[in-house]
Amino acid sequence: MSLDAVLARIDEHLPEATSRLLELLRIPSISTDPAYAGDCDAAADWLVADLQSLGIKAEKRATPGHPMVVGHVEGDGPHLLFYGHYDVQPVDPLELWTNDPFDPRIEETPKGKVIRGRGSSDDKGQLMTFVEACRAWKAVNGTLPCKITFFFEGEEESGSPSLVPFMKENADELGADIALICDTGMFQSRTPAIVTMLRGMVTEELTIKGPDVDLHSGFFGGLAMNPIRALAGILADLHDDHGRVAIPGFYDNIPDLSDDVRAQWEGLDFDWQGFLGAVGLSVPAGEQDRMPLEMIWSRPTAEVNGIWGGYTGEGFKTVLPAKAHAKISFRLVAGQDPDSIRDNFRAFVRDRLPEDCSVEFKAHGGSAASVMSTEDPAFEFARQALSDEWPETAAYVGCGGSIPIAGHFRQILGMNAMLIGFGKDDDAIHSPNEKYDLESFHKGTRSWARILDALSSAQ
Amino acid sequence: MSLDAVLARIDEHLPEATSRLLELLRIPSISTDPAYAGDCDAAADWLVADLQSLGIKAEKRATPGHPMVVGHVEGDGPHLLFYGHYDVQPVDPLELWTNDPFDPRIEETPKGKVIRGRGSSDDKGQLMTFVEACRAWKAVNGTLPCKITFFFEGEEESGSPSLVPFMKENADELGADIALICDTGMFQSRTPAIVTMLRGMVTEELTIKGPDVDLHSGFFGGLAMNPIRALAGILADLHDDHGRVAIPGFYDNIPDLSDDVRAQWEGLDFDWQGFLGAVGLSVPAGEQDRMPLEMIWSRPTAEVNGIWGGYTGEGFKTVLPAKAHAKISFRLVAGQDPDSIRDNFRAFVRDRLPEDCSVEFKAHGGSAASVMSTEDPAFEFARQALSDEWPETAAYVGCGGSIPIAGHFRQILGMNAMLIGFGKDDDAIHSPNEKYDLESFHKGTRSWARILDALSSAQ
Repeated sequence: MSLDAVLARIDEHLPEATSRLLELLRIPSISTDPAYAGDCDAAADWLVADLQSLGIKAEKRATPGHPMVVGHVEGDGPHLLFYGHYDVQPVDPLELWTNDPFDPRIEETPKGKVIRGRGSSDDKGQLMTFVEACRAWKAVNGTLPCKITFFFEGEEESGSPSLVPFMKENADELGADIALICDTGMFQSRTPAIVTMLRGMVTEELTIKGPDVDLHSGFFGGLAMNPIRALAGILADLHDDHGRVAIPGFYDNIPDLSDDVRAQWEGLDFDWQGFLGAVGLSVPAGEQDRMPLEMIWSRPTAEVNGIWGGYTGEGFKTVLPAKAHAKISFRLVAGQDPDSIRDNFRAFVRDRLPEDCSVEFKAHGGSAASVMSTEDPAFEFARQALSDEWPETAAYVGCGGSIPIAGHFRQILGMNAMLIGFGKDDDAIHSPNEKYDLESFHKGTRSWARILDALSSAQ
Repeated sequence: MSLDAVLARIDEHLPEATSRLLELLRIPSISTDPAYAGDCDAAADWLVADLQSLGIKAEKRATPGHPMVVGHVEGDGPHLLFYGHYDVQPVDPLELWTNDPFDPRIEETPKGKVIRGRGSSDDKGQLMTFVEACRAWKAVNGTLPCKITFFFEGEEESGSPSLVPFMKENADELGADIALICDTGMFQSRTPAIVTMLRGMVTEELTIKGPDVDLHSGFFGGLAMNPIRALAGILADLHDDHGRVAIPGFYDNIPDLSDDVRAQWEGLDFDWQGFLGAVGLSVPAGEQDRMPLEMIWSRPTAEVNGIWGGYTGEGFKTVLPAKAHAKISFRLVAGQDPDSIRDNFRAFVRDRLPEDCSVEFKAHGGSAASVMSTEDPAFEFARQALSDEWPETAAYVGCGGSIPIAGHFRQILGMNAMLIGFGKDDDAIHSPNEKYDLESFHKGTRSWARILDALSSAQ
């Protein structure tokens, strides 16, 4: 049977597959920082060349931002589109990394081998699981199992400004029967999972302005309004004493969990103590009347992702600063409209501004939450394939992160998206010392081979 | 009369005096940043050489930090000690400067000529007014008018860690009849002033720690405590709705203004609207039941001088950070003990820490407020001398800044300190585009010549 041969080939050629991933990880494709634009381009080139080596007609496609990579291969059976992103998060604080984030390495750890480096899990390592499954399939069978479109983005970590226009302009080319997205994780690092619920996001940067210039806090302190004081007051008001977000209208129109989903989630037996304990925490900080899985999957949040103002260097400077800044993101759930949330937040800030302060807002991005329909039989095929590969039965789960492309696939291209990934909770994505378990890479590749087999032979 | 000749000499040689000041301003002697230690040393060398050129026995004296400069000249009459500091504040945000802060220049402005550059007003320009007065006096009379000790510090902008030990070790050498300090300003940029009341200061840096590592705000957001949220809550609590500092015990033991001082201050007719208006503000932000001069001179404050945490670079990073930081200073007034204020603040923070957060404090410095006795006749001599030089009669005023050396002179060396300076409210000290009016430099030098004359001939 050809699937067994493909799986054997994956096992046998794991070292070469790993080397290829390390090569891609060495390219510092940080999309949010303009200084790395050339590296984003280089990562796209690397992927084009790699797809071409599989006989895929692939090319780099320009956008106003970082390029897309699009590849096509013809075939019978269903038409699949596979999506991943080649850009990565910034690496600061750099001093907390144990190795150069862009000099990746294989490390032995008490839990097994890991691939350490920025992007190893999010999303280069995940993206390559699918590519390596295709490579093995092709090596064994001479062709890929069905018609596949490859679609790689380079702006996922910076709000995907070019994505929607590109999808709209190329809707005919990108349309397929179903989209496969590899940018999520295993449930509790153990249970293979298909994500059927994704939070959306609104991101805002705000600058509170007080005096025209930085002032001496001795000569002006006590008389002049300090914008950091104003900012702290506003941010402190964002949550009430019960962990609820205090912005008026924030929770309007959010449906409660169906009994069915609630029962499923309760059955997952989420070890929230272990989840928090792994990062040194112990107390669920969200809405106190919700269960922990709701806090991260189906309830919205407000988080300050960055704050700065005044003197932040070595030593001390007794300045009363002219400005204070914060970056704030809201994770959204079904029922919440990004534009209304943004408007309500801005009104909330303006209502709390002291008389001598003004505010400037900068919108970074916004996307609604997505809830996938699992009625498409592809979901059950994939769930079975995953259950065959891993020790535990695969589950349908939620995801607190925001992967807006799932919504775009539905809205722009009219197709369902299936989110399957092999990340672990301790991968430290977006943090120093990001890693991807070698097991995730290896069994992830094997999982895709099984899914390709299941989806292509079903039709 | 020799004073007239000295004043004429000052007028005539103003260009040379200005050139010397520009030379000193070119040395980037930022004391708080270890990277500039060599420059602090160079500024001390420059001053030693300049004093020696006046026949003063001057030398650089090592400390565990930046060196002191001490010079002596013998003479009859009273023994004066003159103090100034050669170190300067950091220059960030550098991009707001119209010129290189260490490439000073003379600029024509609608209000007259100014010397633009870091340290021009605080305190190199002020310090040099006294030195230039001595130079002119010596040129005309062949000697200085009385016994003078020169004492220049290089750590004033970084908490003066070496000052007290140095004064204690050299108490016999530094003792004099009265100390003269040139590090203050004109009242309302117009009235020559002798400061008789100085606020003290306590500075603290705090780090709130939440999770062990930076987290992804999608996967953990809603469940994990964000230390920026905790920090904002604590900082927002620092002030109540009436502008009062809410730390328990903060206002204990603070005496109210005497009727005499209150009457004097009311007589000064402080244009607080103009004072705030000059920096784009309009509303007194302090205790709402106090008059504006009290807010900056005789009432204590709590100010956040710096805040940082999470991602603060270009673009957006949806991190839930491990730590959040703030630098906070308290301006103290008579009756407040720096150690108690620090202890009470730390207890206030600990009381508000969420269960999953911890805090680390770093003490930067602390000094009590000073209230000078004006019974020493030198105060009235100096006030008359200043009134002779300037269009307005000189006043006794308060100062919101913290110049702890005045207290040290009293406590360690048992002498009174007289604070006379020529800064203007718009000098932008500690801010971008610091300047010193050429008039301040010129008439400041003339003022010291008059004061030297008055003090030396009175005894």
